[in-house]
Amino acid sequence: MNEAMKALRFENNELKLAEVDLARRDDEALVRVTMAGICNTDIEIVRGYAGFSGTLGHEFVGVVEDSPDKSQIGRRVVGEINAGCGRCELCRKNDPRHCLNRTVLGIHSRDGAFAEYLSLPPQNLLVVPDSVSDHQAVFTEPLAAACEILDQVEINRWRRVAVIGDGKLGQLIARVMATTGCDLILIGKHTNKLELARQAGVKTIELGAIEIDPASRFDLVVEASGSADGLRLALELVRPRGAIILKSTFHGAVELNTSRIVVDEISVIGSRCGRFEQALALLEAGEVNVEPLIAGEFKLTDGVEAMAEAQRPGVLKILLSVPRAVASVSP
Amino acid sequence: MNEAMKALRFENNELKLAEVDLARRDDEALVRVTMAGICNTDIEIVRGYAGFSGTLGHEFVGVVEDSPDKSQIGRRVVGEINAGCGRCELCRKNDPRHCLNRTVLGIHSRDGAFAEYLSLPPQNLLVVPDSVSDHQAVFTEPLAAACEILDQVEINRWRRVAVIGDGKLGQLIARVMATTGCDLILIGKHTNKLELARQAGVKTIELGAIEIDPASRFDLVVEASGSADGLRLALELVRPRGAIILKSTFHGAVELNTSRIVVDEISVIGSRCGRFEQALALLEAGEVNVEPLIAGEFKLTDGVEAMAEAQRPGVLKILLSVPRAVASVSP
Repeated sequence: MNEAMKALRFENNELKLAEVDLARRDDEALVRVTMAGICNTDIEIVRGYAGFSGTLGHEFVGVVEDSPDKSQIGRRVVGEINAGCGRCELCRKNDPRHCLNRTVLGIHSRDGAFAEYLSLPPQNLLVVPDSVSDHQAVFTEPLAAACEILDQVEINRWRRVAVIGDGKLGQLIARVMATTGCDLILIGKHTNKLELARQAGVKTIELGAIEIDPASRFDLVVEASGSADGLRLALELVRPRGAIILKSTFHGAVELNTSRIVVDEISVIGSRCGRFEQALALLEAGEVNVEPLIAGEFKLTDGVEAMAEAQRPGVLKILLSVPRAVASVSP
Repeated sequence: MNEAMKALRFENNELKLAEVDLARRDDEALVRVTMAGICNTDIEIVRGYAGFSGTLGHEFVGVVEDSPDKSQIGRRVVGEINAGCGRCELCRKNDPRHCLNRTVLGIHSRDGAFAEYLSLPPQNLLVVPDSVSDHQAVFTEPLAAACEILDQVEINRWRRVAVIGDGKLGQLIARVMATTGCDLILIGKHTNKLELARQAGVKTIELGAIEIDPASRFDLVVEASGSADGLRLALELVRPRGAIILKSTFHGAVELNTSRIVVDEISVIGSRCGRFEQALALLEAGEVNVEPLIAGEFKLTDGVEAMAEAQRPGVLKILLSVPRAVASVSP
């Protein structure tokens, strides 16, 4: 099978909709994408981060057209974006997230989800519960990234937590942190986005209204603004022996005063991909309401326009819906 | 009592030996200093770090002349450098190291140990075992700082650990790490200092000889070189999900590429003062041999010269011996 399909690609420093071969990798599943989400990482890639060239996109939900695991065929799935070598210690523990030879969907050496079809190893796919809609399931990947924080630091109702950044990721992180019952505040600079968080029951504060009181600093500060200023603010807000979670990847270097880190024994912890099971469980239980974060929905064929919209200041999650091609693919 | 004493002071941006009042704080012990050590922090203070003004020095051993705790009088002691408020949650747990209102011996709002006498709360003092000499005991404070790492991360014989920096602190850290049986290497640029570490049974490598192989990165990298380059090297040497311990305070900001921290979920952990009990136990057991690190010994009255010598490239620990004043102080 070698049918053509539509895909939103970033090549030679140019973003464009292209007609490409439907390339399925050996021993992998073929997934027909039904919906995909635009992440800040996609935007950063178009700005030069990660040096990726190929089909963009790593947040998706789709239907398995074919798979070496026949039980997956016809199922609605989401997919872990890291595909490991299968042989290293990490892969043998079924956690390819840090496999040194991994490829990453739409980010590193593997075509992504902004296409009619994608290819992933069968073990990367998770079946979506019936009660979770496509519009919810498409948030599984970023929601898992938010859940990763809970795997890295202990958070309970006695912890004082600040999340910096009221964008897509900050909103999801705040919602996930709220499920722990911790004393939580979201710090942002967009009135409408902070209002959205308050509707989800999260306390908020405008960036300009923050007063730094050394006696009431936070146990944990999550930097999700994707800016160097956010990291510097985190360093002011965290208490001695507290932790900063660095959640955003961004292009370029940051100037840091490391003596505060040393003198106050602060931990700065990088945080990336999480486990999909946890995210699906939160969605199925209705504990995190993601749909208010949807700011717009475009057809895949309007992908260039969708990427432009996603970069407009103040815009939250932009989705790409992928209509089923008229000619179905024969496996 | 208000006798005068000699002290090495940093005031109005000038380092000088001065005759000052022997100021003992209320409810504190009075310690006659017998020996003190020069630390890089003392050197950084003279370069403008921490904005301290007063008597320098925080590494010492001495004899208690008077104390509210009468059992301490006449005992040979070392002393925890952080003096807390006594009322906050941390102080109530007997750990004033991060008390927000603490003073710090010779570093923050409290005259230090480069003097004939010093004042510290009685609970800060620890009796030195008879088998530990003054020349060993004076290393208690920096050795405790090295031990702090063992309180912060789990290190065992299966861990691969690199220590960057072959100076005073790096040497102590390497010796403490070696007691865990971990797979250890010290990275430095001074042939003679690396030789000293090898004599203590520590594997070493010259900075220029390092080849970075992504497949054999370290679980833990301790940055003790006190340079921005050291931190950048640490970030290249650490494995995904590994940890960097930041041990040196230095003046100024560092440019960091945070995307490696995020993508590879690296932890950067600041580390400062440790517990004196652990350090004294290592010295008493003879598990860490500190005396080869002594590069010279000066009288307190030659303190300005001693500080100059301590700043000469390649020089390890410089000690200040404090001869007993002819006129003994009457408590």
